[in-house]
Amino acid sequence: MLFYALDIIGTFAFAISGVLIAMQKRMDPFGIFIIAFVTAVGGGTLRDVLIGKTPVGWMNDLNYVYAIGAAVIFSIVLRKKLNRLRTSLFLFDTIGLGVFTIIGVEVGISKDLNPLICIALGTMSASFGGVIRDILCNEIPVIFRKEIYATACILGGITFFVLKYAGLPEDLIYIFTALMVISIRLIVVKFRIQLPTIYHK
Amino acid sequence: MLFYALDIIGTFAFAISGVLIAMQKRMDPFGIFIIAFVTAVGGGTLRDVLIGKTPVGWMNDLNYVYAIGAAVIFSIVLRKKLNRLRTSLFLFDTIGLGVFTIIGVEVGISKDLNPLICIALGTMSASFGGVIRDILCNEIPVIFRKEIYATACILGGITFFVLKYAGLPEDLIYIFTALMVISIRLIVVKFRIQLPTIYHK
Amino acid sequence: MLFYALDIIGTFAFAISGVLIAMQKRMDPFGIFIIAFVTAVGGGTLRDVLIGKTPVGWMNDLNYVYAIGAAVIFSIVLRKKLNRLRTSLFLFDTIGLGVFTIIGVEVGISKDLNPLICIALGTMSASFGGVIRDILCNEIPVIFRKEIYATACILGGITFFVLKYAGLPEDLIYIFTALMVISIRLIVVKFRIQLPTIYHK
Repeated sequence: MLFYALDIIGTFAFAISGVLIAMQKRMDPFGIFIIAFVTAVGGGTLRDVLIGKTPVGWMNDLNYVYAIGAAVIFSIVLRKKLNRLRTSLFLFDTIGLGVFTIIGVEVGISKDLNPLICIALGTMSASFGGVIRDILCNEIPVIFRKEIYATACILGGITFFVLKYAGLPEDLIYIFTALMVISIRLIVVKFRIQLPTIYHK
Repeated sequence: MLFYALDIIGTFAFAISGVLIAMQKRMDPFGIFIIAFVTAVGGGTLRDVLIGKTPVGWMNDLNYVYAIGAAVIFSIVLRKKLNRLRTSLFLFDTIGLGVFTIIGVEVGISKDLNPLICIALGTMSASFGGVIRDILCNEIPVIFRKEIYATACILGGITFFVLKYAGLPEDLIYIFTALMVISIRLIVVKFRIQLPTIYHK
Repeated sequence: MLFYALDIIGTFAFAISGVLIAMQKRMDPFGIFIIAFVTAVGGGTLRDVLIGKTPVGWMNDLNYVYAIGAAVIFSIVLRKKLNRLRTSLFLFDTIGLGVFTIIGVEVGISKDLNPLICIALGTMSASFGGVIRDILCNEIPVIFRKEIYATACILGGITFFVLKYAGLPEDLIYIFTALMVISIRLIVVKFRIQLPTIYHK
């Protein structure tokens, strides 16, 4: 129940981050809504399509659609004040990252897939909405270039399976996995860490 | 039967609009064919994939493939005269918009999905072929920036359900929905209407 | 068995070609891995999604994932010496083109699809990984503009069905189809052949 609430809050925060980028591209309200939608549920949708879980998730639970609609209205109306909410939004977004990773891993497990594939599905759920958003905005996806975003999800997924094999109860696995994703993300942003470059400066 | 004929005509017109854009990008014949294909059936294909109706539509009905092939040959051969056919092409394209919207809504209903999702599927069927086309051509999708194209589909989808709940027979629902989509599109283009901007000029 | 080995070799070579392009775009290691992955299995993944064969192929056979991982490490470590291996890599890549075409055609046949659709699936398997790669790298797909790459697959697919209707045993069909794809590709690159242009210079 708390988990579901966090999922919706994460969806809301992801959608807002989509709105902000769509507005930078000066899209019209329809375009803004689609970018918000894709940012929020694109990763999970791609995951569902690849494993054959169709109709995809948001088609059977309108709460995701409502959360995204609310996020679009909220951020268009308050667009001049969003800057003041930056810290809260960043926090919600980071919570979403943790929750979406866990959901993706669980969906993989429910299909009896190899842990490696489950971790990939968790990472995809949490970070590929942003990839589709960037493609629709005609940009090279930012997570391919500099942000350690997916790395937090991958390490979270590994944590999940380590704890699972260690025999921890599900609740604790969820909490520690989410905390792992969230704290890596916070540390990375705080200290501006990037993946090591393989290029000469 | 008439409906199927209109569907094929719409496919033909959508494919031609794809050819025109692919030629602007100076693609080779293979690229032109793929862009025509994606413009014509990309929206329906995305819809089928998201709801799990596979193999996707055109794989089981080659008439779509033939219509697209014919459109490609037709528009490459007559490429210097297409300008004179502009009005007819625009009309066919608009008919396609109406027909594809109805098909998308019906597919959603056949999967017992919520009306809101059915309207989204109708809009997707009719307008996301153009989104995929624009992505393949390395452009920000035009319907996210200025064209009221999707809006016509959304209003058409709403009309569909209003008439359905009002108890109208299917034939009439189809006719009025298509007329709604087509007339909004015509009015919008005639009077150059755009979605209200949220940006300062 | 030999066929499976060639499939893995092709995957390895496709992945390397992805790495090279991701490095040109100065992506970080995560981005490089994703581009390598998509180049290697993107075409087959798209095919599986469109025909509803899910979970998609690589989720059930980790050897593809390992081959791609090995290709990424191999080409990052040896990035200054890859130029010397150009001929071998080109050959492996071309073998992959032939093998992937055959796999795609066979998958289509296993779903009882029309030969025309099977040939399309073969072409998609072999050449659409590169299309997705180019989209993620924010380029118009190169095979839409100048490379006769897909054409080799299409002619290979036609060869497949001609030989099948002629009653040849499967082994021979595979060998001749692969040879057809490979030799067209070699001839095309050797003589710098392009599809005829429809534009005035």
